[in-house]
Amino acid sequence: MSLLKAQLDSSCQSIQHEIGVGKVADYIPALAQVPSDKFAAAIITVTGETASFGAAQEALSIQSISKLFTLASTLNLRGTKLWDRVGREPSGNAFNSIVQLEMECGVPRNPFINAGALVVTDAMLGDQSTQDCTANLLAFVRDLAQDNSIVIDEDVAQSEREAAFRNASLGYFMKSFNNIERPLDDVLDVYCQQCAISMNCEQLARSALFLANNGTDPLTQNTIVGEERARRLNAMMMLCGHYDASGDFAFRVGLPGKSGVGGGIVVVVPDVAAVAVWSPCLNANGNSHAGTAALEALVRATQWNIL
Amino acid sequence: MSLLKAQLDSSCQSIQHEIGVGKVADYIPALAQVPSDKFAAAIITVTGETASFGAAQEALSIQSISKLFTLASTLNLRGTKLWDRVGREPSGNAFNSIVQLEMECGVPRNPFINAGALVVTDAMLGDQSTQDCTANLLAFVRDLAQDNSIVIDEDVAQSEREAAFRNASLGYFMKSFNNIERPLDDVLDVYCQQCAISMNCEQLARSALFLANNGTDPLTQNTIVGEERARRLNAMMMLCGHYDASGDFAFRVGLPGKSGVGGGIVVVVPDVAAVAVWSPCLNANGNSHAGTAALEALVRATQWNIL
Amino acid sequence: MSLLKAQLDSSCQSIQHEIGVGKVADYIPALAQVPSDKFAAAIITVTGETASFGAAQEALSIQSISKLFTLASTLNLRGTKLWDRVGREPSGNAFNSIVQLEMECGVPRNPFINAGALVVTDAMLGDQSTQDCTANLLAFVRDLAQDNSIVIDEDVAQSEREAAFRNASLGYFMKSFNNIERPLDDVLDVYCQQCAISMNCEQLARSALFLANNGTDPLTQNTIVGEERARRLNAMMMLCGHYDASGDFAFRVGLPGKSGVGGGIVVVVPDVAAVAVWSPCLNANGNSHAGTAALEALVRATQWNIL
Amino acid sequence: MSLLKAQLDSSCQSIQHEIGVGKVADYIPALAQVPSDKFAAAIITVTGETASFGAAQEALSIQSISKLFTLASTLNLRGTKLWDRVGREPSGNAFNSIVQLEMECGVPRNPFINAGALVVTDAMLGDQSTQDCTANLLAFVRDLAQDNSIVIDEDVAQSEREAAFRNASLGYFMKSFNNIERPLDDVLDVYCQQCAISMNCEQLARSALFLANNGTDPLTQNTIVGEERARRLNAMMMLCGHYDASGDFAFRVGLPGKSGVGGGIVVVVPDVAAVAVWSPCLNANGNSHAGTAALEALVRATQWNIL
Repeated sequence: MSLLKAQLDSSCQSIQHEIGVGKVADYIPALAQVPSDKFAAAIITVTGETASFGAAQEALSIQSISKLFTLASTLNLRGTKLWDRVGREPSGNAFNSIVQLEMECGVPRNPFINAGALVVTDAMLGDQSTQDCTANLLAFVRDLAQDNSIVIDEDVAQSEREAAFRNASLGYFMKSFNNIERPLDDVLDVYCQQCAISMNCEQLARSALFLANNGTDPLTQNTIVGEERARRLNAMMMLCGHYDASGDFAFRVGLPGKSGVGGGIVVVVPDVAAVAVWSPCLNANGNSHAGTAALEALVRATQWNIL
Repeated sequence: MSLLKAQLDSSCQSIQHEIGVGKVADYIPALAQVPSDKFAAAIITVTGETASFGAAQEALSIQSISKLFTLASTLNLRGTKLWDRVGREPSGNAFNSIVQLEMECGVPRNPFINAGALVVTDAMLGDQSTQDCTANLLAFVRDLAQDNSIVIDEDVAQSEREAAFRNASLGYFMKSFNNIERPLDDVLDVYCQQCAISMNCEQLARSALFLANNGTDPLTQNTIVGEERARRLNAMMMLCGHYDASGDFAFRVGLPGKSGVGGGIVVVVPDVAAVAVWSPCLNANGNSHAGTAALEALVRATQWNIL
Repeated sequence: MSLLKAQLDSSCQSIQHEIGVGKVADYIPALAQVPSDKFAAAIITVTGETASFGAAQEALSIQSISKLFTLASTLNLRGTKLWDRVGREPSGNAFNSIVQLEMECGVPRNPFINAGALVVTDAMLGDQSTQDCTANLLAFVRDLAQDNSIVIDEDVAQSEREAAFRNASLGYFMKSFNNIERPLDDVLDVYCQQCAISMNCEQLARSALFLANNGTDPLTQNTIVGEERARRLNAMMMLCGHYDASGDFAFRVGLPGKSGVGGGIVVVVPDVAAVAVWSPCLNANGNSHAGTAALEALVRATQWNIL
Repeated sequence: MSLLKAQLDSSCQSIQHEIGVGKVADYIPALAQVPSDKFAAAIITVTGETASFGAAQEALSIQSISKLFTLASTLNLRGTKLWDRVGREPSGNAFNSIVQLEMECGVPRNPFINAGALVVTDAMLGDQSTQDCTANLLAFVRDLAQDNSIVIDEDVAQSEREAAFRNASLGYFMKSFNNIERPLDDVLDVYCQQCAISMNCEQLARSALFLANNGTDPLTQNTIVGEERARRLNAMMMLCGHYDASGDFAFRVGLPGKSGVGGGIVVVVPDVAAVAVWSPCLNANGNSHAGTAALEALVRATQWNIL
């Protein structure tokens, strides 16, 4: 067994008692039904070495982790003028999202809060049909993960769409400030599709590997984004990747990362590796409880914390 | 010429130079096209005496004045449990409507701000189809005005519907707190229809006459609402009837009233009369500039100010 | 027994079971010690007729009712340019006072919220020493009440001063926007003195009588304020006189009034009378529970509700 | 010339045209008088190698950089129970500090916004006299910098004290929530003293060196804080160190750092070095314009960006 695998195993084993602590997201049935004892982790290094633990080949709903992919894709499609429509600073906290939108005239603080992600999705759409846009995003993610089997879970997408009242409110609010160009229904359609992408931990880790290598996939040598953009994405994840617990994550894990309410977290170890974890029970801030604990143990074992 | 007509004429003539000061509402074309020099006023007393000035038989878009009618009708339909879903206190000012909604968990401050009016409309809808609901409201207004010729301007309604981003945001926000029961599209449909009711000043004054007589139409002796409810409606108009200039209106006119961005204002002189004025140019707070001036002159002439 | 006395007695007797409902203000010991079963009411008409009930000659701490006197006095001293520094519109509610101050650059919404009253006190101070300012205000109140025995309760003033953290925060906030001219300690000193004025219900009713008579004391014929200013003060009380329950008071009592956390309320019946009530137990909004009930009964008996 | 010195020189020279761009802080005279063309930079590595450029031995007013020292010292004095009184998450932005305080009941978001720093100072004070507390903090900073010549600029401290209206407002606001224990004047006295510490860039870099070495001064082997606490401080600087431009700094410089309105910035390169820069002209977010540019050039030359 490789050192990497040994480190991953011992880290994961050390936090097994944390699995099941917290609460599975229940705002849509498709998420609420996920067994609370699921756990998985996967690592891939810039040299191509891999290690997995638990249900690392079982698909999870990536939810807000998709915000990372849509941001990368949209920056590639539309360039830095996207930043005229969405900020790049931490947002404080959940509650004030709409207060802030009001004070800042419909420009959300960053692309990782829902309001910001809706703007990014609107920009990604451009002139495309919602079908083409979704298909192109899926293709982008499949390319990142080098895996064409990745799909969108249509049940999840449909459920999200029906529960999207708060996002509709945010979207129409921004539309009243002319910061949403397409009909909001189109934006919400694509947004709910992207949240419903299903990936397993191995795919997730693989898809973020380019960010550990200055924007270039180290295994295919494909340049996904330029160096500067890779740093931008890492900075964004470092400061805003975990809802209102980004400060806590930075202290405990000390790596750029993005979490989703499906219980997945993907993190980037600059110059070294990408890691994905999954455990559906969330802490009060909406981040995977056991997943965060596993990452904390792993960075202690590997000394990967960059702070 | 009666004293009443003389007082109305001299009051209106004294403020003719104010006509055209301010700005016609331009958020929808149908309102923007109204000539800025329109002016009208009409009085009807509890004894049935009437007096008119200017274009008092020309229809205007009543806009937010409709909030008074939907509130009266909905209280009759649903009773005081409506107050569980909407408050009865002044709201401070425009800007914080959504801040307040967030802090107060989706319960708007009063029925005369847009968020509150959406809740009232949702409650008015109940199980009715949007068509039935709109038809019933129109019948209620025709009955108040004793005039079956009153109609809804479908062009205005359609334009409102297309521009309703901010209201959609407020509505979905409240829906995320379960304070909107029907699909929001239904609520917005009825809301935009009610705003688009067309009435002239004589009809408007007539329709509010019951509020000058403790809830009973003094000419037909029909009880529209009970005494207590009439007082409630008058109190609401006194404190919240003029957007963020209710304090200014109370000082200058000193009567319960409700204004709309179409430039109409209806006021109640308790035990005496109802008055309507119209002039489309609005002051910075969205109330008719010349209309307010005319009312101020009229109450000075008639000593109707109750404060 | 006069009709007035009979109406007052029966109104007060009908609500005796409400006395003791609610909670005595306890943020300072001097207020917390007031027996919860105190009750008093007093009426004085513009013709000089009087009627009292209960402990109408026992002093209470007028607290926020003083805001009415300082506003009247300061408008007389400094004129309408005061309105550049404080608004005249309802404020929504308690919680957002400082939010609003921030959004509106240090200009409070009206003179009856604490922030606004601090600005008024600062303006009243002008170049005076705090001692002179306080003495002049006391003289103004004594003149209104035609009673030189009125005093400031120094124990209450001292307690207020020690507990004034929130007011200090509001004051320094406005000072950072240059909307407080004097050192804040001076402003707080005078503010706490004015809140600590002790008056009984008969004095309170007498002191507000000029507002029932267009600004002129009907018994001395002294003009206290002009007609327009009297209407301004009445409008302000109507819309903002009862913290976040002004809408409720307008519905139930339908008269301009001002309440204080000492349990006193003074109301104006335009062209008719002034009334004061006192009962120290407060409802959730900080207004006297039994006092409001007594006023509601009284206006029902007398038909004094103006709405 | 060492490689380090060469890298520093070329980085600094490449941004000389940025010096003077922006605006010197002018809220107190002592800061406003600093010549706008000042520039300095200093590096010290964990092995003790040093390099300086420009006015690196000239003292600047460290201002908010002091928040780093008071936080480290207070955590040592009072332990992690400090976190009950102040959060550890980004705050969004300047404008909402008092909004957030209101919504979160007087608990500031993090120790690097002014409200949070006031709580830290209050906790640091404990039972000490203000003189002892200030003296102890100065001793702590001298020890960090291994330099007993560091002093507090009393003129600056006095000026700060006189201009501290906004901080007084924040402080009294928190005091009304019982989150400030000492009289606010004491807290403001110490706070203004700590902001007025004068240090040059060489001293500043030296004082932060322990944070590049897991909490232990690599040259003296003194443990200043434990490993975990060092990581906490670095995480806090990474996420909240630069007012409302922390996201921008993370992208451009990619290192934990803390800036002050005196134009100083100190950054930590984990396991490698500490760096200080100084140039008094600030960008719109209050951070040194040329200083940030110099750091950006330096991390490009040295590959020290950790993201």
